[in-house]
Amino acid sequence: MAFPHIAILGVGLLGGSLGLAAKSKWPDVRVTGYGHRKSTLDAAREIGAIDAGHEDVAAAVRGADLVVLCTPVGLFSSLLREIAPHLKHGAIVTDVGSTKRSIVTTAEATLPAHARFVGSHPMAGSEKRGVEFARTELFAGAVCILTPSALTDPAALALVEQFWRDLRMRTTRLSPDDHDRLLADVSHLPHAVAAALIAMQDDRALALCGKGFLDTTRIGGGDGGLWRDIFIDNREHLVASVGKLRGQLDHLLGLLDGDGAALAVWLDAAAARREAQVLQKLREVTPD
Amino acid sequence: MAFPHIAILGVGLLGGSLGLAAKSKWPDVRVTGYGHRKSTLDAAREIGAIDAGHEDVAAAVRGADLVVLCTPVGLFSSLLREIAPHLKHGAIVTDVGSTKRSIVTTAEATLPAHARFVGSHPMAGSEKRGVEFARTELFAGAVCILTPSALTDPAALALVEQFWRDLRMRTTRLSPDDHDRLLADVSHLPHAVAAALIAMQDDRALALCGKGFLDTTRIGGGDGGLWRDIFIDNREHLVASVGKLRGQLDHLLGLLDGDGAALAVWLDAAAARREAQVLQKLREVTPD
Repeated sequence: MAFPHIAILGVGLLGGSLGLAAKSKWPDVRVTGYGHRKSTLDAAREIGAIDAGHEDVAAAVRGADLVVLCTPVGLFSSLLREIAPHLKHGAIVTDVGSTKRSIVTTAEATLPAHARFVGSHPMAGSEKRGVEFARTELFAGAVCILTPSALTDPAALALVEQFWRDLRMRTTRLSPDDHDRLLADVSHLPHAVAAALIAMQDDRALALCGKGFLDTTRIGGGDGGLWRDIFIDNREHLVASVGKLRGQLDHLLGLLDGDGAALAVWLDAAAARREAQVLQKLREVTPD
Repeated sequence: MAFPHIAILGVGLLGGSLGLAAKSKWPDVRVTGYGHRKSTLDAAREIGAIDAGHEDVAAAVRGADLVVLCTPVGLFSSLLREIAPHLKHGAIVTDVGSTKRSIVTTAEATLPAHARFVGSHPMAGSEKRGVEFARTELFAGAVCILTPSALTDPAALALVEQFWRDLRMRTTRLSPDDHDRLLADVSHLPHAVAAALIAMQDDRALALCGKGFLDTTRIGGGDGGLWRDIFIDNREHLVASVGKLRGQLDHLLGLLDGDGAALAVWLDAAAARREAQVLQKLREVTPD
């Protein structure tokens, strides 16, 4: 195991689950946690996600071989500035953020030369928040996107990639910009649309909603502050994604003007593409 | 039981489930089914959803006390014309269609004076199609919207309302136009948006989709022809719903230009409205 001591900064759903998964995989690993509320740190220690909790981030990262940023994206910049002077020589820093361009750029500008940064986005989570929802299996079977830049150390990249694989994630690599562009389309926009679909309803309509509506808007149930950070950080790509959706809605209005034949083809094509993805996901999670 | 003989026109997911539910509630009821494929009628009879299947719709409705249109919405007009001469005196006709204005108008213009029409929309279903997915409990606990017009016979309305209640549905009443307007917002548009969210993805983005995306687009997995009928039939309201969503997307673009505070408020408000609906649904399905 390349990282005998892991520091987890932010022990909520993701950080707590990461601690549980690491302790499960490597019973001898030392996990320190940072949080700004003592009660959260206590809860994380009680469930066995961390060995020790610190309200002082310098204390949490001291001596750590791997530091994982698990707070909301909006706090990453200040955290990087705070930990920079306290990282041990050779420490590797990674994160679990849903956007990658800004964190990679900031980390490379902020961290000392003796530490190495590798951007990660484990695509696991829930609309639930907090360490009380943490579970060992949160990451297992899901995809983790690594986002190396021209400045990324290949050895550090390989170690972080192996770390997520050891926690049973399937890893893939994208440039930070490709990551943010693709995720704006397939993750951030759907979240925004879920919120928009709720916001546009009047109370009488909403009272009639069925299971379909609740499923469609499930991801709209997440924490506003958390997603605000993601949206603002990835603003440029998200605006482009909104533009693509508007293009599809314009296309739909055109199809509604027709006799319905092309509309059925459009709907069937969407259904078939989704079905193919569902089958692909089922294949991926089937054990070897 | 007011309807000793029920004719179900179209024995797919909804029609098959209706037959199963009726036979379960009233073991002595006679259920005849109409379909254009003998194999489907045979399958419906084998699972006990109907007593007899007919490829001739006149034979299916002959002597029936209640006729329920369960085919795709696009076939309703021609079915009504075909059954009109064969309905017994006092027969009540209803349907399970997802749009109501056109069927109510057409039925009132097409059916003979000795038959009575009541529009129904049991809000149950699935993205699956076909009698092989039929189940007795499909309707239980869900809402059924009755859509009386100025011409609706109050006694027939009360009987059809009781029919759905006996199958453990919660009933409510809306005018046909209110129904179509509210459902465009809370059901038809979300379906269209799910399709649009799939259609706008390039293959690289789609390959990165997570559980959130698949949930958001689940209702986009339905049959294109079926939804084409609904969209075309409810075109006018759906166009208005698309306009409302575009208004929300414009609002989002404005929020993305700000510092994020108003964006977080907008996201939290949507999450809270959805959560309130989820809690409401849980209360509704809790047994008395």
